[in-house]
Amino acid sequence: MTDTGTVSDPARLGARAARDAIRAGRLAPGELLEACLSRIAARDDTVRAWHFLDPALPRAAVSGLAAGVLEGLPVGVKDITATADMPTACGSPIYRGHVPGRDAACVAALRAAGGLVMGKTATTEFAAYTPTETRNPHDPAHTPGGSSSGSAAAVADFQVPLATGTQTAGSVIRPASFCGVVGLKPTFGTVDYAGTHGFAASLDTLGVFARSAGDAALFAGAMAGWEALTDPAPEAPRRVRIIRAPHWGQVSAESEALVETAARLFADHGVTVTDTPLPAAFEDLLAAQELIQIYEGRRALAWERHTHGDKLSEGLRGHFDRVAAVPFTEYRAARQAQALWQQRIDGMMAPGEVWLTAAAPGEAPEGLGATGDPVFSRVWTLLHVPCIALPMGRGPKGLPIGIQLIGPRWRDPDLIAAALWFEERRGA
Amino acid sequence: MTDTGTVSDPARLGARAARDAIRAGRLAPGELLEACLSRIAARDDTVRAWHFLDPALPRAAVSGLAAGVLEGLPVGVKDITATADMPTACGSPIYRGHVPGRDAACVAALRAAGGLVMGKTATTEFAAYTPTETRNPHDPAHTPGGSSSGSAAAVADFQVPLATGTQTAGSVIRPASFCGVVGLKPTFGTVDYAGTHGFAASLDTLGVFARSAGDAALFAGAMAGWEALTDPAPEAPRRVRIIRAPHWGQVSAESEALVETAARLFADHGVTVTDTPLPAAFEDLLAAQELIQIYEGRRALAWERHTHGDKLSEGLRGHFDRVAAVPFTEYRAARQAQALWQQRIDGMMAPGEVWLTAAAPGEAPEGLGATGDPVFSRVWTLLHVPCIALPMGRGPKGLPIGIQLIGPRWRDPDLIAAALWFEERRGA
Repeated sequence: MTDTGTVSDPARLGARAARDAIRAGRLAPGELLEACLSRIAARDDTVRAWHFLDPALPRAAVSGLAAGVLEGLPVGVKDITATADMPTACGSPIYRGHVPGRDAACVAALRAAGGLVMGKTATTEFAAYTPTETRNPHDPAHTPGGSSSGSAAAVADFQVPLATGTQTAGSVIRPASFCGVVGLKPTFGTVDYAGTHGFAASLDTLGVFARSAGDAALFAGAMAGWEALTDPAPEAPRRVRIIRAPHWGQVSAESEALVETAARLFADHGVTVTDTPLPAAFEDLLAAQELIQIYEGRRALAWERHTHGDKLSEGLRGHFDRVAAVPFTEYRAARQAQALWQQRIDGMMAPGEVWLTAAAPGEAPEGLGATGDPVFSRVWTLLHVPCIALPMGRGPKGLPIGIQLIGPRWRDPDLIAAALWFEERRGA
Repeated sequence: MTDTGTVSDPARLGARAARDAIRAGRLAPGELLEACLSRIAARDDTVRAWHFLDPALPRAAVSGLAAGVLEGLPVGVKDITATADMPTACGSPIYRGHVPGRDAACVAALRAAGGLVMGKTATTEFAAYTPTETRNPHDPAHTPGGSSSGSAAAVADFQVPLATGTQTAGSVIRPASFCGVVGLKPTFGTVDYAGTHGFAASLDTLGVFARSAGDAALFAGAMAGWEALTDPAPEAPRRVRIIRAPHWGQVSAESEALVETAARLFADHGVTVTDTPLPAAFEDLLAAQELIQIYEGRRALAWERHTHGDKLSEGLRGHFDRVAAVPFTEYRAARQAQALWQQRIDGMMAPGEVWLTAAAPGEAPEGLGATGDPVFSRVWTLLHVPCIALPMGRGPKGLPIGIQLIGPRWRDPDLIAAALWFEERRGA
């Protein structure tokens, strides 16, 4: 592709490249849409990333796009997030065919920024544990991860350049790693959750999938109204700390090796890299996150439990039953640990410091019966810090493996700058 | 009323008294319901507390009550909270007649605890600034306060013993004070917000109205699953600190005098009372709360703004316009101040300590064009600490004035115990 030429395969363009081509008049939003629709038509039987997609809807919307930084880019919206013109089934038979009367706040924001809603991407049941039918585009015998299964797979498979995700445990970072794309979970509360079906209010975080850190930042920034994310510049972090916790025992050799490769790359370019262990208390935070997730999920889904309990998966009911007798004070203790360590971690991370760890234990597990283990994301979700998964390499099965960079709360632009800097040095 | 007699006017009973009468077989839930319906029929033209009430619905539900601590007590549900069988209009023409497909989590929880949904209580537009038509039951020429206008008025007027409210600035504490009832805003997150229309996600707090502190605690505990709130015992606070900030200059002489009367009552019964000024930074927190409220409200209502902007009140649009150009970093600074002072206030309050301040500047203002000033609640909502408004006296117009007690985060049972202890000594 040259500056003056036409675009040969628009669906392959990253979000900012497509945006630039649209701005330069080399690509029309309608062409990009059709290229993505063609890709979906060719691949949907294999990947199954969409819970709802009616080409007539984006085709109708493309002529009435708002002017904005997203310039008509097609986006996938995770199917727990309300759309006024499409059903939102939350991965549950309880909401099958349910069309909410409104767009969620993030959908209205992305439309106002010129984004084009392509359709609704497959999610696990209420963005929790029970898998959906989406397959890993790199090998359909493997899970794409979850809960944002369809969003990660659709972006990885060039079906859309951008998609929304949500993370309550590891639902953005893990599927990004498994599918070989970038997953960004900004600081908790950066993108408004109104109109997105909640599971655990003190953990639920809106995030995004893209094929580069800059593309992810563009999209998150557009939804959040965070100007500094829209066109960030690369900048080296001041320091990188390798994090081999919590539950580092579950990491695979290949995932650990890629973390070390990334650390060397930082060091080779003059960044100070440390490898200081975290306080042991971080191991306990894992249990706090799990308790909060299930305790709050059980409360948030009170109506679904009482009115449609038979339509909840056995797995989810089992999780809820496990916490039914947990006293409130135990939940409170977990919330207090969360608050304490949110405050402490702010002091443990200098401005411009980045923590480097695994995004997932290793490659995507085989089969579609489970979405893999969120163990390397739970604590960061609990602590509300921004995280980004970046593709780093491949494992023994040839499937992608990512690394994870973590920054201090509300310092998302610094984290993005470091990710951009890293991407440039890592190579394509 | 004696232990063996019948109940002469069930609508006048407080929640626990009615519950006890029901448990003792002296009152049937259906009788209580009819007594409340009669009261509503007699008073609704004057008070106008309900945005939706169809007697056929609670009459049908009373025969299928769940077994639980609420024992069939009729409750009002603020009309920003979803009910599967009743419309939820959010005080806005945008949602007129809108029937959500589900109960909110708190509604499902209260029904599961044996509560009976009477109807939907009037709210200001999206629980924000623009008043509704509800009148103060003590003098219909005066506002009942807001945003939980109908809930406060209905409980004060003996139309229901309990009602839900929400507070983003001062929407529980202020109307409770104006209407002469108890308003409880528990620690942020105690009652799940899922299914309640959000305005400012880092401030929005579910609360309750009742006619005594114990009744309020029963109701909040039932919705939260917090066992210690269901049947709390009175206990003196270890220390009381009089708080004459932030913006204490706006307090009326009568409201300040009632705070001092309450302080003397604590001191007369042996409680240490201090009057140490707060750090000056608390004054700045007021601006942080206001910015977060409007900034987040503008984002949360993105769909309503973009799709139905003409149906938003001029006042609300004006508020949103004011923050449209505010950079994200300014919002971030307010969130960081919130986090910092949440952590600091925890250290400023010993366990068992209660802060005592005004619940509102004074009596309810005349007229229905505004709901009064939430100035004495904004900072406590920002800091997520539990607050309770207790009726304390009357002002020069003969209208009620309350005081406000504040406790440390997650220490709600201690705060309730102190409120119960205070109520016993204050007299009826």
